[in-house]
Amino acid sequence: MAKSLLSRRVFTTSATAAALAALVPANQTAASTQARTAGTTMGAVRRITLYAERLEDGQLGYGLEPGNATIPGPLIELVEGDTLEIELVNNLDVTASLHAHGVNYDVASDGTRLNDSVVEPGSRRTYIWRTHAQGRRVGGAGIEPGSAGYWHYHDHVVGTDHGTIGIRRGLYGPLVVRRKTDVRPDKTFTVVFNDMMINNRPAHAAPEFVAKVGERVEWIVITHGEFYHTFHIHGHRWADNRTGLLESLEDQSRIIDTKITGPAESFGFQVIAGERVGPGAWMYHCHVQSHSDMGMAGIFTVTDAAGNVPGQPGGGHSGGDHSGH
Amino acid sequence: MAKSLLSRRVFTTSATAAALAALVPANQTAASTQARTAGTTMGAVRRITLYAERLEDGQLGYGLEPGNATIPGPLIELVEGDTLEIELVNNLDVTASLHAHGVNYDVASDGTRLNDSVVEPGSRRTYIWRTHAQGRRVGGAGIEPGSAGYWHYHDHVVGTDHGTIGIRRGLYGPLVVRRKTDVRPDKTFTVVFNDMMINNRPAHAAPEFVAKVGERVEWIVITHGEFYHTFHIHGHRWADNRTGLLESLEDQSRIIDTKITGPAESFGFQVIAGERVGPGAWMYHCHVQSHSDMGMAGIFTVTDAAGNVPGQPGGGHSGGDHSGH
Amino acid sequence: MAKSLLSRRVFTTSATAAALAALVPANQTAASTQARTAGTTMGAVRRITLYAERLEDGQLGYGLEPGNATIPGPLIELVEGDTLEIELVNNLDVTASLHAHGVNYDVASDGTRLNDSVVEPGSRRTYIWRTHAQGRRVGGAGIEPGSAGYWHYHDHVVGTDHGTIGIRRGLYGPLVVRRKTDVRPDKTFTVVFNDMMINNRPAHAAPEFVAKVGERVEWIVITHGEFYHTFHIHGHRWADNRTGLLESLEDQSRIIDTKITGPAESFGFQVIAGERVGPGAWMYHCHVQSHSDMGMAGIFTVTDAAGNVPGQPGGGHSGGDHSGH
Repeated sequence: MAKSLLSRRVFTTSATAAALAALVPANQTAASTQARTAGTTMGAVRRITLYAERLEDGQLGYGLEPGNATIPGPLIELVEGDTLEIELVNNLDVTASLHAHGVNYDVASDGTRLNDSVVEPGSRRTYIWRTHAQGRRVGGAGIEPGSAGYWHYHDHVVGTDHGTIGIRRGLYGPLVVRRKTDVRPDKTFTVVFNDMMINNRPAHAAPEFVAKVGERVEWIVITHGEFYHTFHIHGHRWADNRTGLLESLEDQSRIIDTKITGPAESFGFQVIAGERVGPGAWMYHCHVQSHSDMGMAGIFTVTDAAGNVPGQPGGGHSGGDHSGH
Repeated sequence: MAKSLLSRRVFTTSATAAALAALVPANQTAASTQARTAGTTMGAVRRITLYAERLEDGQLGYGLEPGNATIPGPLIELVEGDTLEIELVNNLDVTASLHAHGVNYDVASDGTRLNDSVVEPGSRRTYIWRTHAQGRRVGGAGIEPGSAGYWHYHDHVVGTDHGTIGIRRGLYGPLVVRRKTDVRPDKTFTVVFNDMMINNRPAHAAPEFVAKVGERVEWIVITHGEFYHTFHIHGHRWADNRTGLLESLEDQSRIIDTKITGPAESFGFQVIAGERVGPGAWMYHCHVQSHSDMGMAGIFTVTDAAGNVPGQPGGGHSGGDHSGH
Repeated sequence: MAKSLLSRRVFTTSATAAALAALVPANQTAASTQARTAGTTMGAVRRITLYAERLEDGQLGYGLEPGNATIPGPLIELVEGDTLEIELVNNLDVTASLHAHGVNYDVASDGTRLNDSVVEPGSRRTYIWRTHAQGRRVGGAGIEPGSAGYWHYHDHVVGTDHGTIGIRRGLYGPLVVRRKTDVRPDKTFTVVFNDMMINNRPAHAAPEFVAKVGERVEWIVITHGEFYHTFHIHGHRWADNRTGLLESLEDQSRIIDTKITGPAESFGFQVIAGERVGPGAWMYHCHVQSHSDMGMAGIFTVTDAAGNVPGQPGGGHSGGDHSGH
């Protein structure tokens, strides 16, 4: 994969330094020359290398280059029709793997012991994920769903045959597949409820996410581990559907600001930061009372145009995650 | 707020006496003169006073007048475009607040310590909730969701910074925002799953709700506390969408009679009492087996036109909640 | 009910022998002569006998003939408009009953002690379930939902007034009501998450389901007991709506491969076996990590046209459930 296809930014928060990387969708001009078959869109074929590594604090992460693993792992963003070849380099001292939700893969890319698609310590293996647009099946067998969705990837073998220890320690990341026509956000924030942690941070140290009023902010919410959670954000709402956005004035999607979710579920949505509520420090948290009390809560900081936050000490935020792509 | 805008009824159940109050939507004639901007409906501005108080049994509640707090608090019903100014009078001996889901509020009405929008004992504070209809955003930035939904309000500071004790003891209530065109029910019943209680009633003492065959009954289901639940009602079903109703014959919404829900989620729906099943004593309950066994179950009594209930001792019900508006 | 309306197949798996029975929808020619009223479709009236019995291993089950009870009970499949009269014969030594989700029944068919609709040991009782198509209510009262859905039935009295012990030991089964126009599957597989078991099988002994690449496979997922679960299947996805299928190219249903579900919820969907991923041994499991680790996982075996499974020892599967109808 050409470096020019990779957009990576390093963000600093008050709690820790985290690196998130976004895979920019294939060049749109190139994509427009793609062939079409029934129900299939031939997109770009791209290639990345992903490193499974131990972090300084003993947790585990995936990264796009050696020594730079993060939790969550890099945001992988595809457009329906794209194929992604991921070479997983296992720099851990235990067998690891890569299992994806939502995309197409044959058993050799399943990432399970069952299908012998794991990676021994010090080895590497290429996983292939394919995607496609929705379309009519040949022969009148109805409509095939496309690959678009807010998905995720994770280890499936560290600790148990279901990757319980790998996931608990951080081997997971967000995967978004977009329709060509989907609205692109200004920024994307990923929240992973993993047991009682958010993004494997310590209690009361969830990331601060920062945006300016009026920015289009995409949230990706993923759950892992043992518990169910209810994701809630103050001052903002979304449509409980594929994109979190209304498609038309006739769209009857339910509008919500709290959603129950359990392990391996994922959803996403976009909001306009501060729309009709203005700048401020808006809490996001799990609304299970003991979970929020024990620290599963963070701040979505919406600044005014000048970068200030009303009502907060010092008139603004300090640090925070301005990530986006 | 003029008294004429307030419709309050007192309902007696076999277990306890409870008062529920409904805020009638703004005068429709007045509303029809409202101005319109892109994506905005200017509705009525109304004002109420809400009292946070300790009940005789030591629980806490919100009420529309001193000495008359209830659990759940009064049903607040708005039409998209309305603004509601709520003066919260804190008659408790601890700091309390008011946090709403779904509506628009700036940080001064967030109801959190984070945003310094709480009310000391003996003090009062005005919270402002605004609502709006869905519409196209200016500049082609897509469609903005409206405020319509089955929402709720609750304390956010008693006991913990997430209001865990305030909520546990009863500081919560239902909030409905309707589209102007939404079908109005004959009656509204609110069920709050709060830990192992329904509406903070003792086990095996959930409210009995009563309606006549053919009445349009609205159910609002809210969850609080620690646990997930599955709300189930016998003999009746609803559409799992914004209103619980089908919009057209082409509407493909899933029809359900059981729904998983977790803390701070809320949903609502309407049924025609006894439709195709007739009058009777219909159970509603959490379908988590230990929860129903331990008493999270009540009766939806559907009488015939004469007020009788077939198959039940005495040929009918005794007491029960005929609430509506 | 005429025997000719009953299609029953016995399937053997590596773990146990299980019998599943499918009720074939009413003769379509006969159904085409049915009368229509507003919102009502008059379908066939059929009759079956269901036996509640103790299995050899001490568990309980429903069966279509004496000595042949299964867990789950027989698949009951109706078309909107059908009426089903089920004579329940209680061959247990405790009082039992039959309670259905989704269909229409009066209180005499509620299956509860509350409505005195249970069956003493050695006795029998006829339960009547009616179904109807969606339609406009007379008098302009909106649209009435139809009965179509992925539902289920279960005991409501063994052990407790909510049937907790009856359900735990196996007194449950799948119930599908289809619209006349719904696409019929080649095969139907039922997965019941019942506490920590799948279909009351021992840990690590969930059924193997087998299909050929290209077959249209319907999954019915039902939950019972205490816990929430997240159903996940490898290599396949579905639409999170009424049928699991997209209705049109404009259908914006969310596509998922993992879904949270709690006791008494049920959902279903259809997949084309191996579509875009090919044959293989595809895991299906609860994605709550401790649940999958403790054995809530099974295999969906997709064979190639010749019946082989790539990547698996022996090149194929051994046994497994080829059920369908």
